[in-house]
This record gives sequence, structure tokens and C-alpha cells, in this order.
Amino acid sequence: MKFTVSEIAQMLDGTIVGDEKITINSAAKIEEGQPGCISFLANSKYEAFIYTTQSSAVIVNKDFAPKKEVAATLIYVENAYTAFTILLEEYQKRLSRIKTGVEQPSFIGENSKLGDDCYRGAFSYIGKNCIIGDDVKIYPHAYLGDNVSIGAGSVIHPGVRIYDNTVIGKCCTIFANTVIGGDGFGFAPQSDGSYKTIPQLGNVIIEDDVSIGSNTTIDCATMGSTIIRQGVKIDNLVQIAHNVEIGKNTVIAAQSGISGSTTVGEQCIIAGQVGVVGHITIANNTKIGAQSGLGKSIKKEGLSLSGSPARDLNEHLRSMALVRRLPEMEERLKDLESKHETSDFQEPVKQP
Amino acid sequence: MKFTVSEIAQMLDGTIVGDEKITINSAAKIEEGQPGCISFLANSKYEAFIYTTQSSAVIVNKDFAPKKEVAATLIYVENAYTAFTILLEEYQKRLSRIKTGVEQPSFIGENSKLGDDCYRGAFSYIGKNCIIGDDVKIYPHAYLGDNVSIGAGSVIHPGVRIYDNTVIGKCCTIFANTVIGGDGFGFAPQSDGSYKTIPQLGNVIIEDDVSIGSNTTIDCATMGSTIIRQGVKIDNLVQIAHNVEIGKNTVIAAQSGISGSTTVGEQCIIAGQVGVVGHITIANNTKIGAQSGLGKSIKKEGLSLSGSPARDLNEHLRSMALVRRLPEMEERLKDLESKHETSDFQEPVKQP
Amino acid sequence: MKFTVSEIAQMLDGTIVGDEKITINSAAKIEEGQPGCISFLANSKYEAFIYTTQSSAVIVNKDFAPKKEVAATLIYVENAYTAFTILLEEYQKRLSRIKTGVEQPSFIGENSKLGDDCYRGAFSYIGKNCIIGDDVKIYPHAYLGDNVSIGAGSVIHPGVRIYDNTVIGKCCTIFANTVIGGDGFGFAPQSDGSYKTIPQLGNVIIEDDVSIGSNTTIDCATMGSTIIRQGVKIDNLVQIAHNVEIGKNTVIAAQSGISGSTTVGEQCIIAGQVGVVGHITIANNTKIGAQSGLGKSIKKEGLSLSGSPARDLNEHLRSMALVRRLPEMEERLKDLESKHETSDFQEPVKQP
Repeated sequence: MKFTVSEIAQMLDGTIVGDEKITINSAAKIEEGQPGCISFLANSKYEAFIYTTQSSAVIVNKDFAPKKEVAATLIYVENAYTAFTILLEEYQKRLSRIKTGVEQPSFIGENSKLGDDCYRGAFSYIGKNCIIGDDVKIYPHAYLGDNVSIGAGSVIHPGVRIYDNTVIGKCCTIFANTVIGGDGFGFAPQSDGSYKTIPQLGNVIIEDDVSIGSNTTIDCATMGSTIIRQGVKIDNLVQIAHNVEIGKNTVIAAQSGISGSTTVGEQCIIAGQVGVVGHITIANNTKIGAQSGLGKSIKKEGLSLSGSPARDLNEHLRSMALVRRLPEMEERLKDLESKHETSDFQEPVKQP
Repeated sequence: MKFTVSEIAQMLDGTIVGDEKITINSAAKIEEGQPGCISFLANSKYEAFIYTTQSSAVIVNKDFAPKKEVAATLIYVENAYTAFTILLEEYQKRLSRIKTGVEQPSFIGENSKLGDDCYRGAFSYIGKNCIIGDDVKIYPHAYLGDNVSIGAGSVIHPGVRIYDNTVIGKCCTIFANTVIGGDGFGFAPQSDGSYKTIPQLGNVIIEDDVSIGSNTTIDCATMGSTIIRQGVKIDNLVQIAHNVEIGKNTVIAAQSGISGSTTVGEQCIIAGQVGVVGHITIANNTKIGAQSGLGKSIKKEGLSLSGSPARDLNEHLRSMALVRRLPEMEERLKDLESKHETSDFQEPVKQP
Repeated sequence: MKFTVSEIAQMLDGTIVGDEKITINSAAKIEEGQPGCISFLANSKYEAFIYTTQSSAVIVNKDFAPKKEVAATLIYVENAYTAFTILLEEYQKRLSRIKTGVEQPSFIGENSKLGDDCYRGAFSYIGKNCIIGDDVKIYPHAYLGDNVSIGAGSVIHPGVRIYDNTVIGKCCTIFANTVIGGDGFGFAPQSDGSYKTIPQLGNVIIEDDVSIGSNTTIDCATMGSTIIRQGVKIDNLVQIAHNVEIGKNTVIAAQSGISGSTTVGEQCIIAGQVGVVGHITIANNTKIGAQSGLGKSIKKEGLSLSGSPARDLNEHLRSMALVRRLPEMEERLKDLESKHETSDFQEPVKQP
């Protein structure tokens, strides 16, 4: 996909200084630019690069005054960083719009319906009675079971597995090989030591604007629904167990796990490799530090927690600092003890 | 799939009070029921819901005496919860029985044989010389390498990868995108700093009644077999390394990892995000708490362990409580030290 | 695949004692051997097994002098273990060479080119403008987006997902269901509490001789490239975030995660379940123990680190030993305090 500098300037409401007919086919950091690339300069720390960059065009803030000659065409805008982001988004949007139609072979079950401008990649599988909205992109090797519904504008990447009865909202993105709606991990112990499988009959509901990374797993509910609320962002290799609910706009980083029947509030931030036990409730705006293990409900909003078991971040840091100083503390303890021994020894002397 | 209340009552050996011809097509919690649903009431805490539920039928204990009018048809049974579980299982069983036959396109290599009533989904791949038992369900996009054998009644979900020579028992369930039999992580360091791959020629053996979650990985043995014994239940995103053996009826929760050549005993319970080092042996009935790291063999049966490094659960909790109180302990230490300084200062006074 | 003992001896430059026409079709540990198997005896600890093994042939060190009769054919070599490894490698190589040609149905986009002796499994998908070197094996259900290049001799296992613009070197192995080049986890918080997706336009570059396990995720860079240098070995279920660089010959064990924009040096060893924060630099030859959490840059080469937060291994072990002894330390503290109370009580006595 190619744009001219003139088209880009129009898109960004910018002013051009230099050749407006140059063709742009890629974006790059200003220090790594090549001919055909567009870059941006927002932070004056990087200004030196604008005089040497190989990029064909650079987006700059409207108050930028070059101190030397600049080879690249400049596009002056209100805010260079924001403008660059808008440009990248537009590029992505156009790119994704390119994929439409059906590649063969692909499979679609009876009574399943797709909206306009959808893409179905080769080897994609759609079960029975599915309802797929407009502009939905289903990449190669994606699997949708029966009775799945997907809202308009969502993108299902290669190898994603979506089990029966899953409901996915609008403008969601699910990255490769993520599994939505596998059975919750529920087994009833039997008297002979074996375990009997507890049937998992619920489903997963994912609301609008949710993003889910690669190789993540979200289990269906035993009964009812596992629910991922609007705007939630989930990273790679995350585990969301059965009957969990993740509140609006909460962010969960890679390799974290939320155990069964736990409710996470809105606007929470859960860092990487965190573990959360089952059957608890976490208040809105809670922040949980990387590798923490949360074992009980958090009722107060806005706390920052860390450690395993997780507690107040500052208290945790203070304790960790003292753990590091334990050898020193023990020395001090020994020291006191030896003084006491001495004084014990002296006591008979004192007593009389 | 639909049942009448009369069919359900027969299945559960129950007695009907109300309309026995009502049709049931789904199950729901009593507080979330809709017309067409069946629910259960086992715990009197939820009794209020039975008078307001929208469910068409409710399974109740035989001693249940309604205090108000109930709109739903009631099915009286010995134990409402058990009966409900039996019903769900029966439903699941019938559901899975529906899938039979072969969807096209699908691939099957030479000399591979399937039993009766199998299902092969579209885009499923079966290599050469595979032996697949009766009633085995192989979902779309599943991959079986060469010389794989799968016992009767096992279900291989979408996107599961089963490498060459894997042996899977009867009535196993393997959820989506799990990988069985990838190479063990074995590399020999060379004098130039590079690593040479140690060929991994063994396989994986999975016995009967094993359940394995989504996106889990079980590596093949370097030589010999990685073995998952009968009745083992493994959750999502679990790592089982080469030459590991997991004993009968052991349960492993999500995101835990067992390193190479470790033997885990029978009836163990390993919680989420646990790490176990290689080349150790864990006794039967060991319980390991979430996020623990086990670094040495456990010889005594029945222990509960926690922490990283893992040790006796109670000792760990005691230490963790003191870690939380370290700032206070340091205060006390300072206090003692200051007293000593005072008393050191006074000593010259005392001595003469 | 079968070999005669005579062929094997020639391959290993060995001397045969026994029947050289016996056919070998498998390898096994000496204590588990069956007819048709070849085993090795390198460690005298296992010598007893050579007199009872069912293996048809055993590779032994040139100085091995049997104390009893041996039924198996013996192959005498310089170093039995090394010879056995060479044999296994040769076997693997020949095995992989068997897979060539194209299974149908498979998909290949316009302008994509493959070298000689490649394998394309059924249901494999190759996008547009891909360049695939000689001897590359692309297993069933593998997905390559557009503009992907793969160097000669690399093996892409079943279900691997390789996003657009990824560059993979020569002789790399990527195991099943691993995802290369999914979007980095980047979102800009908005004033209404929602998050806006930051477009991820970079790619992933994997150099030669890299091995990547199953169900691992390597994200593409926001801009520029996520880079995995030559000879790196990555295990299963590992997370490598956007813009990370992993130095030459570094090894990363299962379930570890490296956060965005971090640079890991050469020849590092990162054990299992380790977490590394973003935007730091780790010096060459750093060793990080299992379950550690590394929160800051490591500038000195060759350190061994452990703990969360990670620090010098020996210091960490010393602190951990004291954490275990905290209950005892508190007793000692109490003891001292009670003595002081006593002595406080006595002081009035002393003072006058």
C-alpha cells in the first residue's frame, strides 16, 4: 500500500515543506529510516537524527525550526506523535479492509450467516447457526463451533478456537491460537480416589472492543457465563478460568491467571505472571504488581498491591528490603545476645 | 436437543409435581432461569428463588416442602445436586454422540484405521499407521502424526497437535491447541558457546480417563516415554517436560510446570503456577500450594507444601507472617540496641 | 527406517563383535531394550544391564571388557555416548528428509516461492510474496502470512502461526502452535478510561539455528524488529514481548516471560517461570534462577541471580535460609526483650 506525502498531509491536516509527490510505503523510527519511509520527530532529544535520516518524510510539531538543512520532506502538524499514531491506524484500517471474500477450501455449517465485507480464510471452519456481523475477518485455520455470534468489525486471527455458544461483541481482536470457551477445570473427587468430570454447560461472553493476545485460554462457565466486559485488554498466555468476570477496561499482562468464579473490577491493571485465587472479588482500579499472588478479596478501590501473598505495595517493598537485610539483622541479634551473655556472666559480680 | 420433563424424571428416577409435558432445552442457575430451562434447588439458602424463577422445571430434594406457590414443574429426587449432575452428563454424552462421520476436506494417511462411530472434522489430519478406537471424536484442525494410537471414546478437540508415536488411552479428553509429544528441551553446550540439539526419540504415553486442558504442552521423552497415568487431570497452559511421569489421579492446575525427568506420585494436587525442578520424585498425596517452587524430592506421603522454595505449609505461613512483620521486628531490634547503648553508657557508672 | 549393524558401525567408525547383519529399527535405554533396538553403555553403573538387555545391539566404549556372556551384538567406539548421539541425529536427519512434496489441499498465495525438496503438509497456508529456502518443511496446519521469508533447512511444525513480514533464518525449528509476530501489547489510556490500540507495525527477525518450543509467543515490534539472535533456544509457553532482543546462544526455559523493549545479552541462561520487566538490559552470561523476577538492568557480565526481586544467588539463598528461620529469630528477640524487662525491673535495685 502506498501513499503520497500530499495524501498523508491531507489526512493529518498538515502543511508540507518539501517535495509533496514523494511516495511513502512504510513507517520507521527516525534513526532507522530508509527511502520510502515516513518518521516523526516529537521529542527534541532526537532532533539530531532529522538532519541525517534516510526517511523520505518526517512529521514534525508545528513549532519545529530546523537548525540545519533537512533532506526529508517535512509535514508540520499540531502534535507530531498523535498525528503519526493516527496515520498508523489509518494504514492498519486500510490494510485490514483489503482482506475480504472467501478463500477455498473453507467450511461453513448449515444456517450460519455472515454480514457484508467479511473475510473467511482458507481452512477456516464455521459451525452451525453462527451469526457473523459485517466486516468480520476470520483468518485461516480459525475454528468457530456451533451457535457462535461475532459482532461487526471483529478480527479472529489464525488458529483461534471458539467453542459452541460463545458470544463475541463488536470490534474485538483475538490473536492467534487463543482458545475461548474450553471446559472449566472442574472435577468431583470420588471415594476410590478418581475424579468425575463436572459438565461445563455455560459459555463465554466477550463484550465490545476487547483485545485478547495469542495462546491465551478463557474457559466457559460451569453454568451461566464467563464474562469479559467492554474494553478489556488481555495479553498472551493468560488463563481466565470458568465463571470469572473481568470488569470494563481492565488490563491483564502476559502469563497471568485468574482462578474460577473470581470477579475483577473495572479499570484494574494486572501485571505479568500474577496469580489470583478463585471465588474472590477485586475492587475497581486495583493495581497488582508482576508475579504477585492475590489470595483474598480487595474491597477498597484504587489500591496498589504486590507480593505473594499480595499486600500493600509500600509495605511489601519495606518487607522485601528487610528480607535482603536479614543477614545483617541476624548479626545485630547475635551481637545483642553476646552482650547479654557477657552481662549474664558479670551479673554475679554485680549482685553482691 | 430437547427433553420433556417426563423423560428427565424417568432418567433421574424422580417424581413429577406439575406439567410433565413441558419441553426442556437448556439448564440454568435457579436465579437466572428462562422458560425452557431446568434448574435445581439443593441448598435452602436459595429457596427464595424457587418462587420467582422463570425456569420451566426445578429438580428438588425429596423432602422439599414449598412455602408458597411454585410456577415451575418440580421433579423430586433423592439428591437434587447429584441428579442435576447426572442430567448434565447425560446431556453432554448425547451431544457428543451427535458428531459422527467425516467432514470434508480431511486427510488420512495410509494404513490408518478408525473404529466405529468416529467423527473426523473438516481439516483434521491423521498421519500414517494410526489406530483410532471406536467413538473417538477428532475435531476440525486436529493433527495426528504417524503411528499414533487413540483408545475408544477419547475426544481430540480442535487444533490439538499429537506428534508421531504418541499413545493415548480410552475416554481421554484433550482440549484445543494442546501439543502432545513435541521435542524435550535438550541441548548439549559446545566449546564455541553454541548448543547442539540432543535428538528426542521417545514418545508420550497417556493412560485412560485423562483430561488435558487447552494450550498445554507435554514433551516427548529423550528416550523411553513421558507418562501420564490413569485419571490424571491437567488444566490449561501447563508444561510437562520430557521423561516426566505423573502418577494416577493427580491433578495439576493452570500454568504449572514440571521439569524434565521428575516423577510425581499418585493423588497429588498441584495448584496453579507451581514450578517443579527436574530429576526429583514427589511422594503420593502431596499437595503443593499455588505459585510454589519445589526444588527437592518429597519422600514422605501426604505433605502440604507451599512457598518458593516450597516447604511445610504451616512453617511457610508462619515465616510469611513474620516477613510481613519484619519492619516491626526491626523496630524491636533497634529498641534493644538503643537500650544497650544507654546501658553501655551507664556501665562505667556501675563498674566502680 | 531400518539399518543393519554393519551400516551403523560404518557410520560411527566402530568395530563389531557379534552378528553384523542384524537389523535395527529403534533406539532404547539399555534396561528397556527390545529386539530390533540399539542401546549404549557409557557409564559402568549400568554394566549389569548389558548381560540381560533384550536390545539387538549395544554401542560400548573401546575399553569395555565384558565379565559375562553378552547376547547383543557390540559396536566398539571411541566414546559410546557421543557415538549414540551421532546415530540419533543421523536418524532424525534421514527421517525429516523423508517428508517432501505437497499434500493436498494446501494453500499458497501469489508470488510465493519455495526452494528444492520442501514439504508442504495438507492444510498448510502460505500467504503472498513469501520466500522459502531449500529443504524447508512446513507441516500441516502451519500458517505463514504475507512477505514471510524462511531460510534453508528450517522446520515449521503443525499449527505454527507466522505473521506478515517475519524473517526466519536457516536451520531453525519452531514447534507446534507457537505464534510469531502477533501484535505487541500496547495501548494508550484515554481520558474516559478506555484504551486505544497502538498500531504494531514492526516485525520479528529470527536468525539461524534458533529452536523455539510449543505454544510460545513472540510479539512483533511496535516499530523496528523483535530480534532473536543466532543459536537461541527457547522452550515451551515462553512470552517474548515487542521490541525485545535475545542475544546469541541464550537459553530460555519454559513459561518464562520477557517484557517489552528489554535486551537480553549473549550466552545467558534463563530458567523456568522467570519474569523480566521491560526496558532493561541484561549483560552477557547472566544466569537467572527459576521463578525469579528481574526488575532492573544487569550491567556486570557473568552474574548468577535468583529471587523476586532477583539479586545475587548466594545473597538470595542466605536471606531465604533466614526467612525459614524467622520464627526462631523472633524467639531470640523475645528472649532478649524479656531479659531486658527483667533487668529493667532490677535496675532500681542496682541504681542506689
